[in-house]
Order: sequence, then C-alpha cells, then structure tokens
Amino acid sequence: MTDAPEGGQRLSFDDLAARLAAILERHGCSPKVARLIGGNCAAAERDGAHSHGLFRMKGYVATLKAGSWVDGKAEPVVEDAGPAFVRVDAMNGFTVPALAAARELAMEKVRENGVAVLAIRNSHHLGALSLDVEPFAEEGLVALSFINSMKSVAPFGGHSAVFGTNPIAFASPRAGGLPLVFDMATSVMAHGDVQLAAREGRTLPEGVGVDRDGRATTDPAAIVDGGALLPFGGHKGAALALMVEILCAALVGGKLSAEVDLSQSGGATTPHTGQSFILIDPDRGRGTLPGFASRVETLLQLVAEAGQERLPGDRRHAARETSLREGIFVPAATLKLLGELAA
Amino acid sequence: MTDAPEGGQRLSFDDLAARLAAILERHGCSPKVARLIGGNCAAAERDGAHSHGLFRMKGYVATLKAGSWVDGKAEPVVEDAGPAFVRVDAMNGFTVPALAAARELAMEKVRENGVAVLAIRNSHHLGALSLDVEPFAEEGLVALSFINSMKSVAPFGGHSAVFGTNPIAFASPRAGGLPLVFDMATSVMAHGDVQLAAREGRTLPEGVGVDRDGRATTDPAAIVDGGALLPFGGHKGAALALMVEILCAALVGGKLSAEVDLSQSGGATTPHTGQSFILIDPDRGRGTLPGFASRVETLLQLVAEAGQERLPGDRRHAARETSLREGIFVPAATLKLLGELAA
Repeated sequence: MTDAPEGGQRLSFDDLAARLAAILERHGCSPKVARLIGGNCAAAERDGAHSHGLFRMKGYVATLKAGSWVDGKAEPVVEDAGPAFVRVDAMNGFTVPALAAARELAMEKVRENGVAVLAIRNSHHLGALSLDVEPFAEEGLVALSFINSMKSVAPFGGHSAVFGTNPIAFASPRAGGLPLVFDMATSVMAHGDVQLAAREGRTLPEGVGVDRDGRATTDPAAIVDGGALLPFGGHKGAALALMVEILCAALVGGKLSAEVDLSQSGGATTPHTGQSFILIDPDRGRGTLPGFASRVETLLQLVAEAGQERLPGDRRHAARETSLREGIFVPAATLKLLGELAA
Repeated sequence: MTDAPEGGQRLSFDDLAARLAAILERHGCSPKVARLIGGNCAAAERDGAHSHGLFRMKGYVATLKAGSWVDGKAEPVVEDAGPAFVRVDAMNGFTVPALAAARELAMEKVRENGVAVLAIRNSHHLGALSLDVEPFAEEGLVALSFINSMKSVAPFGGHSAVFGTNPIAFASPRAGGLPLVFDMATSVMAHGDVQLAAREGRTLPEGVGVDRDGRATTDPAAIVDGGALLPFGGHKGAALALMVEILCAALVGGKLSAEVDLSQSGGATTPHTGQSFILIDPDRGRGTLPGFASRVETLLQLVAEAGQERLPGDRRHAARETSLREGIFVPAATLKLLGELAA
C-alpha cells in the first residue's frame, strides 16, 4: 500500500481483491463466489473500467442485502447440451461464478470441435464484459459474448425502453501483444456511465436518451428515472441491440430485458437475465496456412498506418500496466465507502 | 411478363433469373454457377435490394470478361475441418456456389453439435448478404455472417481506407412470420449505394466519407475515387468493422481487404476475399423450455409496442411480396442493358 498524492491510496491487486471479497462474503456471498467477484471487480478497477469497478460495490451490497433476488451462495449447474454446446443454470446467482464453473467444459468442446456455444441463464451480471472474453483469447481462442440486462434502451424510432444496454464483447489473440479486446454497449452510452453522470450532476450530450415521455433530454437523471437510452448508430445499432437480445434471452432460455421487474427486487440492482458466448478455435479455419495471430497483427499494423492512433482496449491495457506497476489508485472517499461496506 | 406503366416490364422471378443466368453463362460461367448467381441476383432485385440486384450485372460481366481474376467455372472444394467446422476453398470462384456446395455438410454439423462455423476463402462476393443467411433461419437456425471486401473504409480517426464495408448479417427464426433478417455494412453507407449515388450524380449527407486527402466530402465520386468511407457509429462501428475483418480474412485464411489489389484485376470489380458463417441450433440452448421462435416473437411484439414501426427486413419482405404477386419490375433502360449484355 502506497500513499498517493491525490488523497487516496494505491493498493496492490491482491490487497484490493481481498478487501472486496471480504465485503461480499460479509453480505452473504459464499467464500468462492466472493473471491471470484472480488477479483472481477478489482480487475475492472485495475483496467480503469471505473463504471464496472469499485463504483459497483454499493450495488453488489444492496443486491445481496435485498435477500432472495440473488443467491450469493448459488452453485451453478453445468449441462452438457451437445458436442459443442454448454448450458449453465446459474441458479439465480452471479454470472461470474457460472462462467468459471463452465469454462473447462467449454474449452474442451471448442478444442475438440472448432467452435462452441456457452449459454448461461438465470444469472446476474454486474461486471465488465471485456473481462469475460479476454481469458479465452489468452488461450488462443476468438471469443464473442452477448448479454442482456434490464430495459433501458428504446428500439429504433421508439419512445420507450425495451432492450438492455445489450453489450457485445469481442476478444482475439494477436501475435504482437496482449489480446485485442473490446466491449461496447449497443446504447449510445453505457447505463453505468449514465448513472455515474447522474451521480456527479453532469449533463449528457444530445442524442443519448429520452425522458419518460419519450422526449429528447440531456439530463442523465431523466433517462435513468423512467426514460430510455437510445441505440448507437441509428437503425444499425438498434438492429444489433435486437440481435443481442435474441442471442441472450431467447437463445439461453432466460428473461428478456423487458421482463426484468426491478420494482420487485427489494433494492437489488442486478438484472436477472442471461449471457451467451461463441468461442472459436481460429486454427481450425486456417488448415496449413500461417498463424491466425500473425494475420491479426498484420491487420492491426495497417490500421495504425491508416491513422487510427489507439486500438480498442489500448487504454485499458495502459491503465492495467500502471496499476500493476504502481498499485491501483483508490480515492479517499472510496476507501471510506469500502470501510463502511466492510463494517 | 406484364407491361408496367413506368416504362418497363414486370418479369416473373423465374423468367428474370433465367435471363440473368443466360447472360452469366454467355460470359464464362458454368451452367451451374450461372444458375446459382442468376437466382441470387434476381432474388436481390425481387426483394428491392437494388444495389445488389440488376445493378450488379454489369460488374459480373466485366469481371467475367477480365479473364483470370475470377473463375466462373470454379468447382469449390469443401473440407471437413472439425466436428463443427467446415472450410471451403472457392477455387477463385464466386461465393454463392461455394456456399451452396458446403451447405449440406454445415447443416449436418450444426444439427449434430449445436453450432458450426463455415469458413469460405479464395472467393468473390457481389450479392446481398441477407440472402446468404435467410435460408438457414428458414430451417430453424440462427445464422450470423461476416464478409470483407476491398479497402474502402477508414479506421476510427483514420485518414485512409483499410477495411472493406465489412457487413454483418443476422437471421433468426420467429414464430409469427418470415425469419427476422438484417444485413448492415459497418460503413455509414454501403459501397454499392455510394457507387449508385455517384452514377446518379447525387450528393451524400455529411459524415459518410473522406476524399483521397483524408478531408470530409459529400461527393460520392470523391469517396469512390481514392477516398474512404467512414464506419457507422464512430468508434463502435469501427470496432465492429475490425472484428469483421478478423472474423473473415484472418479466420478463413483469405486476403485482408487492404491486400486486394483491383488495379491488377483487368477490369474485374469483385474483391477476392472470404466469408464466414456462425450457425447455431437454438433448440440446444433451451432444453425443455418453450420454443425459441415464440420467444423471438414475444420480443418483436414488445419492440413494436415501444414504438418501432418497421423491423429490419420488413421492407425487403414487403418488396418480395409485391414482386411475387405482380412480377419484378425492370425499368426499360435496365431491360435494354440486359439485352446488350446477353448479345
């Protein structure tokens, strides 16, 4: 632990993850679930993904305190649904432990068959989707993931919310560095970022959302309070939001975002939905041709030459490097909050 | 054949497809390839996808006339690359016959395993991507497809082209009607539509592309002539364009869009790249839960209630219905052109 000039402290990853795990266990997670989610949340903070990092801890605690909305001790049930298809019933627990429980079988299936689907249902997700796909790319696989949540995004030309922010995540090995990883909400802005803006009293740019009457607004509170976000990129982003909803809810056998009724959650903040993964072994596609990862590297070099200064994920990797070198900076106010949550 | 008031004729699908096949065979396609591509091109026109319909016939003919750039008589070679992975070497022919050759094996694999990848390389695509995925959804499968082409789209913040228009296509069964199908260029506008605008002397909206010096322009000719299109939706669309390039070129073992050198094509207009499909059997994801297609239908109902008036694909299906009822309208000038191409 190092003092930092801005009024806070720098914590090692392990220290921060252990503190978060202790908080989660204190509020009802099993030791295993607490360890997995604590590590996930600390990793998001380490990578500078603040809207999915420590900012989420209050939500985790409120959710656990709410009682039966989420089971912090759930033991996920992994089902072998076909030679290249794994289903997981998260048993109303968090998604992170459900993914951890199914990872080994999914990896076996993709190595054996060239591709596999992993479909998680009856689950709750509060983390950064990039962290779900990146480990597969570290193993040489291409990974896509889709997740739906609670209704907060209007369809194209619509006046009220029906989709979640329905992010898409993608990870691919590359020869010259850490995997290429991105995740993107199919809304103009992530719901977490709108919540953060509301909390900090900031105004949003035009085109982010509508209020509860379907009128355009730049007030994040009006969007959060019964309004709706808009999909990014007009009808194209809206079509992708719809696709994600199908590839999650319908495909995994979970709830649609519009079917999640948080008014019944007793203060919990997690959507009770599902998540899907498509995992591909890229070597199967190439036969005797030279390596996939070196072809990706060639592409990324051309992208840089054409003037793109920063690749998706570069900022996250830079933040990670700083965090691992200097420790993860935690502001004093957040440290105080973590202390309160641990008490 | 029926006279149409606008100065043209309405042709039956079969009549139009046969005329197109005759033109393609006249210019060097084998009878089988001519029949498949003629049908594909007529289907695009039937569906109102004009930029991938009869508009393309001059390109097909120029490409075939160019000699060795594309082999109109190619016999694709299908390779069983794994229990859930099919590779196809299109043998420098068109993609449509390569897909047709591999369809049966791919269908077997997805039925057996729950998911399959179909990776086509060494191929040329001039058709509408929606037509490639729709037949899988008609069989109850979810289908995704990705294709790269020739460099025409700048990366995020970039000044010159590196990606193709790199479309994504998606098709899903639904209980209450024809499959939900969309395809979308990851550029702001499809290259075919920019070519069409250039041909018709129209000006484009702001934000579609840059000229050969990397400056914003609304002149479609300046974009086509050494400039670049921009990705849709800023950095998010750009990330998707990059993902498509990886899921095509790198995954299938084909050329990157930036590696296609049309200056060596002798007048041919087709990119020599690849295409990939991810096919999913959605019933595997649902176990004993009620049907996937009815869940999709429920979602689409909610989307309509939230104010979206037209779903992706609705316009195409409406055009198809009209075409099948009244015949496919072909303007007099296009009929004349088809006559010239057939001569």
